[in-house]
Amino acid sequence: MLENLGKELELNGWLHGIRGSNKFQFLTFRSSGQLIQVIADKEILGDEVFKMVKSLTQETSLSIKGLIVANEKANFGWEMHLKEIKIVSPSTDYPITPKEHGTDFLFSHRHLWLRSKKQLAILRIRSELSFQIRNFFHEKRYTNIDTPILTGSVGESAGTLFSTEYFDLGKAYLAQTGQLYLETAIFAHEKVYCFGPTFRAEKSKTRRHLTEFWMLEAETAFMENEQNILFQDEFVRTVVRRTVEACKLDLDILERDTNHLLNQVEKSFQVIDYKQAIEILQAAQFSIEWGDDINAEGENILTEKIGGALFVKNYPRAIKAFYMKQNPDDPRTVLCADLIAPDGVGEIIGGSEREVDYDKLVERIYEEGLPVESYSWYLDLRKYGSVPHSGWGLGLERLVAWVCGLPHVRECIPFPRMMYRIFP
Amino acid sequence: MLENLGKELELNGWLHGIRGSNKFQFLTFRSSGQLIQVIADKEILGDEVFKMVKSLTQETSLSIKGLIVANEKANFGWEMHLKEIKIVSPSTDYPITPKEHGTDFLFSHRHLWLRSKKQLAILRIRSELSFQIRNFFHEKRYTNIDTPILTGSVGESAGTLFSTEYFDLGKAYLAQTGQLYLETAIFAHEKVYCFGPTFRAEKSKTRRHLTEFWMLEAETAFMENEQNILFQDEFVRTVVRRTVEACKLDLDILERDTNHLLNQVEKSFQVIDYKQAIEILQAAQFSIEWGDDINAEGENILTEKIGGALFVKNYPRAIKAFYMKQNPDDPRTVLCADLIAPDGVGEIIGGSEREVDYDKLVERIYEEGLPVESYSWYLDLRKYGSVPHSGWGLGLERLVAWVCGLPHVRECIPFPRMMYRIFP
Repeated sequence: MLENLGKELELNGWLHGIRGSNKFQFLTFRSSGQLIQVIADKEILGDEVFKMVKSLTQETSLSIKGLIVANEKANFGWEMHLKEIKIVSPSTDYPITPKEHGTDFLFSHRHLWLRSKKQLAILRIRSELSFQIRNFFHEKRYTNIDTPILTGSVGESAGTLFSTEYFDLGKAYLAQTGQLYLETAIFAHEKVYCFGPTFRAEKSKTRRHLTEFWMLEAETAFMENEQNILFQDEFVRTVVRRTVEACKLDLDILERDTNHLLNQVEKSFQVIDYKQAIEILQAAQFSIEWGDDINAEGENILTEKIGGALFVKNYPRAIKAFYMKQNPDDPRTVLCADLIAPDGVGEIIGGSEREVDYDKLVERIYEEGLPVESYSWYLDLRKYGSVPHSGWGLGLERLVAWVCGLPHVRECIPFPRMMYRIFP
Repeated sequence: MLENLGKELELNGWLHGIRGSNKFQFLTFRSSGQLIQVIADKEILGDEVFKMVKSLTQETSLSIKGLIVANEKANFGWEMHLKEIKIVSPSTDYPITPKEHGTDFLFSHRHLWLRSKKQLAILRIRSELSFQIRNFFHEKRYTNIDTPILTGSVGESAGTLFSTEYFDLGKAYLAQTGQLYLETAIFAHEKVYCFGPTFRAEKSKTRRHLTEFWMLEAETAFMENEQNILFQDEFVRTVVRRTVEACKLDLDILERDTNHLLNQVEKSFQVIDYKQAIEILQAAQFSIEWGDDINAEGENILTEKIGGALFVKNYPRAIKAFYMKQNPDDPRTVLCADLIAPDGVGEIIGGSEREVDYDKLVERIYEEGLPVESYSWYLDLRKYGSVPHSGWGLGLERLVAWVCGLPHVRECIPFPRMMYRIFP
């Protein structure tokens, strides 16, 4: 925009805010998703136009014309001196005013709240992250395989699935993961990923859960757990670095320290064993024993002790999904890893090497009480040229929360779906 | 790979096919999604290894080592002369043999069929198209807004929605479109798009319908119908051109004439009025009258008469969605356009300028018999700074069908969902 200094420009947009005196009015004008300072000077505009400007209400859509003038204190280093103004459409009693509003009120007005400065920044960062994620996989020649949402079979656990009637075929379930389908595609494409909405009908109301969220899943043939960890490490550090570099202005709006963030992804993340994690937690007087899952509080202690994000690998078999490969060095555990993000965000990736042995897999499906007949096609993959392979899944909203420095995932998606929220 | 000529290479993959004599065996080896010719020479390998090679069955996973040698007739201009071979995992009675299989059989074995040469090519092209679509919008600084799948309100028509129980909040519906949600975001970001799965519980069994398909939708503030058409034109021609250039080898596999395709997107598509379209069809002895929708057969006649893709604009109001803006020059019609692709593909984009007037919109919602209360948040957008805006939606699978030259969309998605198919 600085190339426009001294020029007259015409802009379309909305009145984000207004304040001033009887001589000057200062408009915050939202155009192309940016907030621009516009000065209305009574002497230049004349009494009648100035009076109209002064009476403008929040969110009125406008077409304005004026001179672009340098001003160090303004956003982007410039402001507009208003010459002409035309109302496109009025706005009366816009519900979201500059005063404080409650969370419930704001989420009930999410369709309007999106216009707010911070929400604009968050969703721009989400958009950039999404693009950088796809760009990373495109560079690495991964094939994007869109896995189905409507499925006849059941993912990890039957209790937390949304279902729908599917013509004469009975019930279909909304997929909790694309992983099993992705696994079919590695036999063709070897390196594949999917990235789309995922559903969990969980009755949980934590700050890290949504019933509908976007998940990135990657699956690679001939990749073992240790390489899988290195791959995730490269992935997360690359996409976060690129996004921070592209979104500095938005991160400023969120008062997120970009240097802190860049430092966090400068070096490879530490990798510790589940056993070590338990020892660290016990040494910190945290009540946990071998075999327990590590909860949000435990994750926070770990990232503080380690001083950043970390991988915890080789969890006990009993608390992980049926498809994870048994650890040959310690059969009580599986070859897996979770990536735990710092700043209170917690687990953002879960990954593992997959069980390749047909019989072991069937045994685990029975152990979990899952209907083995729904997995017939998945089990076929272990019959016809089974190969070692690994994969992982990343929750987009948690990554957005980390990058933006937000305590809750619900602002990290345009229209969050929670146990008590399906509107708007 | 040509840089590897004369070198010894180790590859992992699968035995795609095998044939030969008692002296030589010719293996088609699938590695990194490519089919590579591998020559097994009894004299080099020795009796025992050669015998093992000869007995290998389709889809056995292998680790092989050999010399890379130039051969003009082989794929990519080279082949491997086998030196060492190790079975990773066996494959007995692989169901998809080189013989012909019926369509139903193949779709029931989709999890394995993905390994076939043509299916590999189609999904690689889909993957590239998806990336080029996102890349186009990223270049144009559009914000990616992921619209929700689970919605309390109803899109275009209530009769063709999948529904699910949503905790204590009653029924939720699977979104047929993200458009209404996208419209909320233009007031913040001005230029937005979404790209994700979409659902239609339609009891239709045509070659152009799926119950779950991927749709790209774009929405732009301060854009009128005519600009909207030009924007779609640029979009389609750009992403098709870039995909064809990136996927020449895959298009060769599908025997798709890339020059024909590039010619089709070289110049801007023609734009004709619905009225003109009716006249052209009537002149071609096709039975149609003003007010009728144009069916697949009519679309094919139009692309043949025009000699390529074309936009048909300003359809009768009664056959289009409630949110389309009335045409001020002819109130019986709306400011819209469909993009019709040639080669028998038909409509791939539907777009329009949106109605901005609150009262007209309410009237149309009532006319369509839709529940006005579910649209309260959408109607809010016309209360608070309404602006002219336009948008459009593209069905990904139809675009893939066009690029690949396929008669049916069902092979254009990894796991197609149709009225009679939810498995695997």
